[in-house]
Formats: sequence, C-alpha cells, structure tokens
Amino acid sequence: MRVDGKSTRTIWLEPDGWSVCVIDQTALPHRFLTARLTTLAEAAHAIRTMVIRGAPLIGATAAYGMCLALREDASDESLERAYAMLIATRPTAVNLKWALDEIMAAVRNRPRAERSSAAYRRAAEISEDDVATNAAIGRNGLPLIKAATARKKPNEPVNVLTHCNAGALATVDIGTATAPIYLAHDSGIAVHVFADETRPRNQGASLTAWELGQHGVPHTVIADNTGGHLMQHGLIDLVIVGADRVTANGDVCNKIGTYLKALAAHDNAVPF
Amino acid sequence: MRVDGKSTRTIWLEPDGWSVCVIDQTALPHRFLTARLTTLAEAAHAIRTMVIRGAPLIGATAAYGMCLALREDASDESLERAYAMLIATRPTAVNLKWALDEIMAAVRNRPRAERSSAAYRRAAEISEDDVATNAAIGRNGLPLIKAATARKKPNEPVNVLTHCNAGALATVDIGTATAPIYLAHDSGIAVHVFADETRPRNQGASLTAWELGQHGVPHTVIADNTGGHLMQHGLIDLVIVGADRVTANGDVCNKIGTYLKALAAHDNAVPF
Repeated sequence: MRVDGKSTRTIWLEPDGWSVCVIDQTALPHRFLTARLTTLAEAAHAIRTMVIRGAPLIGATAAYGMCLALREDASDESLERAYAMLIATRPTAVNLKWALDEIMAAVRNRPRAERSSAAYRRAAEISEDDVATNAAIGRNGLPLIKAATARKKPNEPVNVLTHCNAGALATVDIGTATAPIYLAHDSGIAVHVFADETRPRNQGASLTAWELGQHGVPHTVIADNTGGHLMQHGLIDLVIVGADRVTANGDVCNKIGTYLKALAAHDNAVPF
Repeated sequence: MRVDGKSTRTIWLEPDGWSVCVIDQTALPHRFLTARLTTLAEAAHAIRTMVIRGAPLIGATAAYGMCLALREDASDESLERAYAMLIATRPTAVNLKWALDEIMAAVRNRPRAERSSAAYRRAAEISEDDVATNAAIGRNGLPLIKAATARKKPNEPVNVLTHCNAGALATVDIGTATAPIYLAHDSGIAVHVFADETRPRNQGASLTAWELGQHGVPHTVIADNTGGHLMQHGLIDLVIVGADRVTANGDVCNKIGTYLKALAAHDNAVPF
C-alpha cells in the first residue's frame, strides 16, 4: 500500500529491532498516525480497541505481542499469560488463535534464552506469509477483473463493489478483497471501486476509501443501501468481499450486510 | 400519533383559521419544534428544506401553500405562480402534483373572492382524506399482523421490520406502513418494530424510532445491513414498508435499500 506516495505496511519492526509500529486506524481517515507497541499490554490494547483490526493484521500483531512478552520474561508462565491475554482481545478473528498457536509451537520446546528470538523470527514469517498470500489472491483474482474488462467498452472502467475493509489495512499489506483490485490498477487496467460505507462502524467509508485514495484507485463511497440499486442498473461489474470464515461446503461468513449484496448480485447475475 | 401523551398531527390550522403549523422534522429526534407557515414562500421553503417530508404530508403542505398564496392574491397570475413555485420544491413526491391539481380544480372557475375559502376547504379535505386513507390501510393491514401473531408462541411479540419513515410523520397522521402497527399496538397486540437506520438521511433512526417511542411501541433501531441477518435467524415475522410508487403490474418503487430487504424476505420466506 502506498501512503503519501511511500510504500507502507500496517505493521513493522522499528529500527531498534524489537519494538513494533502499527498504523493507528482509529485516527483514519482524518489523520495518519502510528502507534509504537513496546509491551504485551500495549499490543493487547491495540487489538482490543481496534487501533488495528482485520483478522490477518490481528494475527500478526498478536504474534508480535507474544514476542514483546517473551522479551521481558521467557518463562512458561509468561508465555501462558501472554497467550491468555491476547486470545481474549478479539475472539472472533480466526487468525488470532492461529498466530498465537504458531508462536507457541515455535518456542515451546526451546531453552528460554532462545525463545524471544525464535518468536520474532516466526512473527516476521507470519507477516511475510500474509503479504505473499495476499499477492497470490491478487494473481488469482486478476483474471476475474480482466474477464469483466472484456465485457466493457474500451476505456470504460470495471466497477467493483466491495463491503467493509478487507483491504491492505486489514492485513499486513495488499489486502484480501483488494488484492486483485490493486494488481489490476497497478497493471494499468481502469478500475473504479464502489465502497460500501459499512455501518455501524464505517470501515468502508473510513478505511477502504482512504487506502484506495492513497493508492490512487478511483472510488466512490456509497450508503450500504445503494449497492442493490447500482446492480439493478448495470453499474456493478463484479463484487469482491473478504471472508471471516469459509466452511468446508463453501459457505462464507463475513461482515454483516454481505449477505444482502450477495442476494442482489444473484438477482442481477453480477459475479460475486 | 401521540406526542408527549397528546394526540398530535403533523400539520394543522392555527386558531387564527388561516396560518398553518407543522412539526419541524429537521429538529427530530432531539427536539420537538413546530414551525408556523404564513406565506407561500414559507410553505415552499418547508418542503424544499425537509422541515416536512413524506409524500402525503408534502401534498397537504403544498395544498395549504396554495391557500396562503390565494389569501394574499387570488388572481390567476398568483395561482399560477404558486403552482409553479410549489411543484418545483420536491418533484419526486407524487402527492405534490396531485394536491396542487386538486386545489387548482377547486378554485379555477370561481370568483376571486371565493377562491381562498374554497382552497382552504379542499386543503382540509385533503388532510382528512389522508388520515382516513391511512386508517383504512391500518384496518386492511391488521389481519397480516394478526396472522403473524398466530404463528408465534403466546406473549411473544410480532417482530416487524420497516425501512425509512412511512410513519405518521410522513403523512398527516397514522402513517402508511405504520398504520397496521399502530392499530395492532392500540388493540393490545404485542408488536416490536425493527427500524432500519436508513442511510444516508437516517429517517428510520431519527423519525420512525421517535414516533414509535412517543406512541409507546417497542422498537429497536438497526443498521441497514442488519435486516438480512435477522431474517436468516427467524427474528423478523413480517416486513412492512411504504411505497413511493406502485405500477399497474404491481411493481413498487420505494426508498433506496427496500429492494435488498425484499430480496432477503423472499430468500427467507418472510411475508413482505
């Protein structure tokens, strides 16, 4: 993601090599602020108060929260206390438990002296893997946008509807739902995004619109009621949203309101 | 509609017999204010700035706007000027043109000296007819709520979802979509209303919730995204909304977002 023209992630290690910096998403879209996390308690607080949000970013932040705890105290008791504190911060985010278990597995059978550095290595891998996963979503999703382009007149942008923020800000970088959009835009394909406001917390209006704007992707914020109307009038070429869960049979759980847009997409034969 | 325990309409003639009083809906739900309209320009301004809104109430207010114009100047030129000014205030409200045409027909072939009183008589009839129409909607809609009651356990309230404000505040009194709800409530049937917030102007949160609360009807304001989720979980027994237009083949136009709720009702076999 570009912010003020510079390539930026949502979470990174400071030059000191141990403290963690995150974008403070509670200040967006009005101010771009960062928050420095130096303790387990600060990491837990950042998740709990939605300074950072989005399941993948919650996972990465929780992993670094474990690192901050182990840096101060590498005992089993400290490990268990950190796990218990972090798991309670946002229990619906599946990546949270996953990342905590990953750190647990990486340090559990190690001597205490090695635990902190092992945790930092695994946390860095979790962050890099998230970026790689999202880039892969982008490569896999790009053909869907190209297919939509083929149905448009020359120079007409592909209109993508999205709901909530499954963007770079929800992940370490690139985003899930936004990955194909950013890749298309960066490849020179004309894309325009309709971003649902996403009541009651307005993640679409506050976060998706902000990051699309920073990256230079044309977009329009709409009230959540508007998507159906736009689809009825042929103004949406495809819908891309994130997923909090995907079940074995293909059912998807996602932010409230996604279901209504899926019904409207079905009713109007818009790819979803 | 009851306001502070007193039976109240949205528009009435002052004791002076000519000036018009309306509830100032721009101050709701925070303050209950009224506005006195004494000239054509004030009536037009009240419609244009949404001091009053809702097609039936716009019609009644426009009719009285014609009265106020004719009271000052009963010439054909004044009549035509008033019509032209009022028709431009809110061109999507079908009752606006209808009410203006009704006043035109009532005064056109009369001597100037009789025009003002004829207009006031017709404006009063328009108001009374609106109340009677809404009462009839209530009587016709009540069996739908009773039928829903029959499907509930004893003492469980019927949960009605509504969108926007097609309530007493949109009409002279009682409301269209709310008429069966008020009648059921007043008959001692337990009713609970889920009121969509109704972005972008929040008529559900600001107006529907206010008038239901004043009348004592239990209700919950929800984000527009929530209705589909509630229907998926069996928490909505029926949906009642207003209609800006009904076409000859039964298609309905209404506030943006109604379509999404209709799709969800269909998907979950909820009467709409």
